Amino acid sequence: MGEKRIGEQTIAFKNPPSIISTAAIAGPKEGEGPLRDYFDVVLEDDLFGEETWEKAESKMQKEAVRLALEKLKIDEKDIDYIFAGDLLNQLMASSLAVRDYKIPFFGLYGACSTLTESMSLASMAVDGGYADYVIASTSSHFCSAERQFRFPLEHGNQRPPTSQWTVTGAGAAVISSKGNGPYITHVTTGRVVDFGIKDANNMGAAMAPAAADTILRHFKDTGRTNKDYDLIITGDLGKVGMELTLEIVKKQGFDMSTNYSDCGIKVFDLTQQDVHSGGSGCGCSAIVFCGYLYKQIMEGNLNRILLISTGALLSPTSTMQGESIPGIAHAVAIERGV
Amino acid sequence: MGEKRIGEQTIAFKNPPSIISTAAIAGPKEGEGPLRDYFDVVLEDDLFGEETWEKAESKMQKEAVRLALEKLKIDEKDIDYIFAGDLLNQLMASSLAVRDYKIPFFGLYGACSTLTESMSLASMAVDGGYADYVIASTSSHFCSAERQFRFPLEHGNQRPPTSQWTVTGAGAAVISSKGNGPYITHVTTGRVVDFGIKDANNMGAAMAPAAADTILRHFKDTGRTNKDYDLIITGDLGKVGMELTLEIVKKQGFDMSTNYSDCGIKVFDLTQQDVHSGGSGCGCSAIVFCGYLYKQIMEGNLNRILLISTGALLSPTSTMQGESIPGIAHAVAIERGV
Repeated sequence: MGEKRIGEQTIAFKNPPSIISTAAIAGPKEGEGPLRDYFDVVLEDDLFGEETWEKAESKMQKEAVRLALEKLKIDEKDIDYIFAGDLLNQLMASSLAVRDYKIPFFGLYGACSTLTESMSLASMAVDGGYADYVIASTSSHFCSAERQFRFPLEHGNQRPPTSQWTVTGAGAAVISSKGNGPYITHVTTGRVVDFGIKDANNMGAAMAPAAADTILRHFKDTGRTNKDYDLIITGDLGKVGMELTLEIVKKQGFDMSTNYSDCGIKVFDLTQQDVHSGGSGCGCSAIVFCGYLYKQIMEGNLNRILLISTGALLSPTSTMQGESIPGIAHAVAIERGV
Repeated sequence: MGEKRIGEQTIAFKNPPSIISTAAIAGPKEGEGPLRDYFDVVLEDDLFGEETWEKAESKMQKEAVRLALEKLKIDEKDIDYIFAGDLLNQLMASSLAVRDYKIPFFGLYGACSTLTESMSLASMAVDGGYADYVIASTSSHFCSAERQFRFPLEHGNQRPPTSQWTVTGAGAAVISSKGNGPYITHVTTGRVVDFGIKDANNMGAAMAPAAADTILRHFKDTGRTNKDYDLIITGDLGKVGMELTLEIVKKQGFDMSTNYSDCGIKVFDLTQQDVHSGGSGCGCSAIVFCGYLYKQIMEGNLNRILLISTGALLSPTSTMQGESIPGIAHAVAIERGV
């Protein structure tokens, strides 16, 4: 198992890496939501001066990385690795974003679980003695995702109540061996969980079993429970998936009803913004963590959180070929002081 | 930089992990090539009993993992992580392959560089003390790649001489803290390099600058040269990209002409098999390494090799939007004894 491994799926870091800087860029709709004051940049136009939404998304991720570095006294050449990914086919947003940085690059695909996937691997690179400064970054864009996964926007299709709204946003975090927290103390890496759901408009339900699986595994591996955290927050389950997760975890004896939330619920005002079940996309947990949650921890409003980004590993091809939607969720425990 | 880091992009492992098992599954055309005797399985039919090529590709990867484990005295539940990826949108092949294994999963996208990307991260997980047994696996399939990236097969389009033939194949390697080699001693992680090539039928030329960049960086970081290796072998540059790489590296003072090859050249008989510039795809370096090279090292015919899988980070969307093709290449140094 490795000497830093505890239980079946969890690492307890010997030298917990610090998250020394973050940056979040949000789209116009996200900028009208409840977290507007926490984003570094809110776009006025979701094309961000580019000709296509895909290029706009890539520019957002590139800018998020630049801003996260600008807040530090270090330079691009001090960065040892960048772990990045997005929802677009062949990681178009990340590949083009990283092209102008001369930083060794590991491309990731974890669907909407990419933020915590990249934070997990970045932390392993730092604690393992391979790096002092690592960037974890990700993005999504409503318009590029919608036309890739569902319908052309011009089609104006109706959306069922279980559907979610892909967040237009990018987030980057710098994870380092040098720093005074907030620390990443544990990572619990998810397995693929598939309960047979085939409705691509109900991804919350497809991802909930994976989220619950990783949360319960984290509790078992660490001996912790929900009571050890100020906040347990999933990535983008939305209203439907969040209720399912609460229920599955409760059946195993953990009542998280007082300290559990979801980034997809936090990022929009569900009563006013017509996003149905809530936000989704890699950018969802990225801007909620890199914008809002990181500042809450830095200001002492939160001391210890468990962040679980959640991914639905579907593709339009797998759906057309009758496959169900496998889910995955990766958890990262973050603490103000250790 | 981290205490195990040497130079700008390289890790020298303190406790080099061993590659304790590999398995390679090849398609019918690959089975007619010069390496036919080295593959664990050669498919008679490239649908492998499935209804679609995508599901066939996924089954190949799942089977490669199963075979690599079957050769060991360990069980699926002893495996700490699986690092896997493929060329399909949203990693359809890997996600469905991993679904039936209860193993913590990190999804990767590095285009055709995925084999060495996964081997690099698997080695870091082992040497870092996070795992004792890790699987690195990847796949590609001519038919699923062709219709996703280029044209429907039924279209029967002509292929220019610079084009390459996507390998139908899957490879899996088990990397462990327990074993007696062959050892992964160093990894050199590539940066994104883009020389402005826009022709999706000339990916060898798009990837060659990235391959040369990583090879030269490996030499600089480690103090080694091509003379320190029995073989330096890139992933899937084909004839065109291989010649370019030789030339770029030679201009920097290293004449690799006597011990440099490319998996895309090795896997097919270019004079007989009508594959134009050679093989390509994640499966190319996967079956050449997991099938042929691993056995050459085990039998003592090769003592130290540098394997550099090479990826072209293009997508049909990026090409349609006028973007050039960024390349990336990750190097892994493998040694029979240390």
